[in-house]
Amino acid sequence: MTRAVSRFRPRLSDAGLSPTHAVIAVDEYNDQRDLSVAGEFPLTIKVDDREIVTLMTLGTHPETLTLGYLRNQRLIENLSDIVSVDVDWDREQVSVTTRPGTGVIDWEEKLSRRTVTTGCAQGTVFSCTLDKLYDVRLSIPRIRQSTIYALLRSIASHNEIYRQAGAVHGCALCRESEILMFIEDVGRHNAADAIAGQMWLDGINGGDMLFYTTGRLTSEIVMKVAQMGIPVLLSRSGITHMGLELARDLGVLMIARAKGRHFLVYHGHEHIEFDAKPTSKARQPGTGDQAEV
Amino acid sequence: MTRAVSRFRPRLSDAGLSPTHAVIAVDEYNDQRDLSVAGEFPLTIKVDDREIVTLMTLGTHPETLTLGYLRNQRLIENLSDIVSVDVDWDREQVSVTTRPGTGVIDWEEKLSRRTVTTGCAQGTVFSCTLDKLYDVRLSIPRIRQSTIYALLRSIASHNEIYRQAGAVHGCALCRESEILMFIEDVGRHNAADAIAGQMWLDGINGGDMLFYTTGRLTSEIVMKVAQMGIPVLLSRSGITHMGLELARDLGVLMIARAKGRHFLVYHGHEHIEFDAKPTSKARQPGTGDQAEV
Repeated sequence: MTRAVSRFRPRLSDAGLSPTHAVIAVDEYNDQRDLSVAGEFPLTIKVDDREIVTLMTLGTHPETLTLGYLRNQRLIENLSDIVSVDVDWDREQVSVTTRPGTGVIDWEEKLSRRTVTTGCAQGTVFSCTLDKLYDVRLSIPRIRQSTIYALLRSIASHNEIYRQAGAVHGCALCRESEILMFIEDVGRHNAADAIAGQMWLDGINGGDMLFYTTGRLTSEIVMKVAQMGIPVLLSRSGITHMGLELARDLGVLMIARAKGRHFLVYHGHEHIEFDAKPTSKARQPGTGDQAEV
Repeated sequence: MTRAVSRFRPRLSDAGLSPTHAVIAVDEYNDQRDLSVAGEFPLTIKVDDREIVTLMTLGTHPETLTLGYLRNQRLIENLSDIVSVDVDWDREQVSVTTRPGTGVIDWEEKLSRRTVTTGCAQGTVFSCTLDKLYDVRLSIPRIRQSTIYALLRSIASHNEIYRQAGAVHGCALCRESEILMFIEDVGRHNAADAIAGQMWLDGINGGDMLFYTTGRLTSEIVMKVAQMGIPVLLSRSGITHMGLELARDLGVLMIARAKGRHFLVYHGHEHIEFDAKPTSKARQPGTGDQAEV
């Protein structure tokens, strides 16, 4: 991975939770079944004792989730402004401590403007995020169809929590067909934020990366991926019209319904080299995919 | 339906949008395909010119979505306090006008407390919601397995937008196997809120109803359904551990992974009469259902 030399890293706690819980259910035969379900916990992010937001999370990557949230919302610009990230599950909170004097006036302004777009696309978008979004200019690399297929094969072995307990979404950061990170969470956007946090921590540039998600490509996920500087977005599920419009505006290659040998390119197909077209013309339907989210 | 006599109804605009948009995509053969995608639009709710929240919605039921949001968040207690609900898509906002003198002091308090739980479970929960939640005491009716199966057969014909464009969730309000309302939306909780709004408008009591959703049963959806006074929750997808804990605390019968003849009862199985057990013991796996959300 591309890492900056002698990069500053904040001190992080190591409070990741186990993702699943054993429960007993009764099936359609009235028989008891031992099953696993995904955890879901509130985590309130506090920066220097100021409450920012409460996220509901699986809890496996609380520190990088916190960093990625702050990064994707553009609430803190420089990693070196963060001294520490301490998760305390008993109090259901994570305390972020910044360097003394880190833009206090700016904070007041950012938080006051939250009311404008709170709740946007099932998450919380601060208006300062939107202001800076159109500064992002992405350059789409050339991508081979055979690479997409190799990537989809690699992904299939990663969604462990989903296969065990369901009720989570997975997101992956990939270079070519190599999966660099794969994170699952009950919150659709938390997995993306946790990846953003790890990228920030490691100084990884998204410019030659590809972002995969099992979730839908709505406006908010397209925004987050563009914020992360990643120009290629691949989903197992469908898209919304606003997600597509943002992908066009920001220059993101948008591939959806990617599963097996099937995919649909909604924006940027001219960047794909079709070097592995399937031989059979027995097409799958383009919509109503059962993997929908 | 149960309706109160001469019930007050606020004046509503009629600004529902068409749910899908025609787009062109390119498939794995590099062939063009004419497809539909789901709409996604920001809608800022303003009450007496005060901004409350911005939701991303499909836009088909903006007026009942607004009413249901205000109701489920317990921001307005009485329907008769609402004079009108006017949607203006050009300004991406809905203006709610209340009767003069409607609890202004209370409003200030409610909005100031939003910061505590904003963004909870991919939505926005105001802390006043949580305060009142445990006032809810639900009484689970007896339900027959054959009724569950009849309901699942009825549901299959209703998810029109999903089949056409994907990327939406459906929610239904049902009495026995009869589907009284079925609403789809890109926002996982908007469909539930729109149903809550229609129930409020029509004075429908949820006590003998059943709530079906294609989405996961996380903490927030269990809270919403309990707020709506509905004691039976049925999902095509999985559950989270916190969703289960809330269902236990609030007394909600929780059935998940319901599809075809398969289902799993996570809470309240003693209220089910198993009058239609499948004859074959060829079981489906209990987790990793492809219908996951």
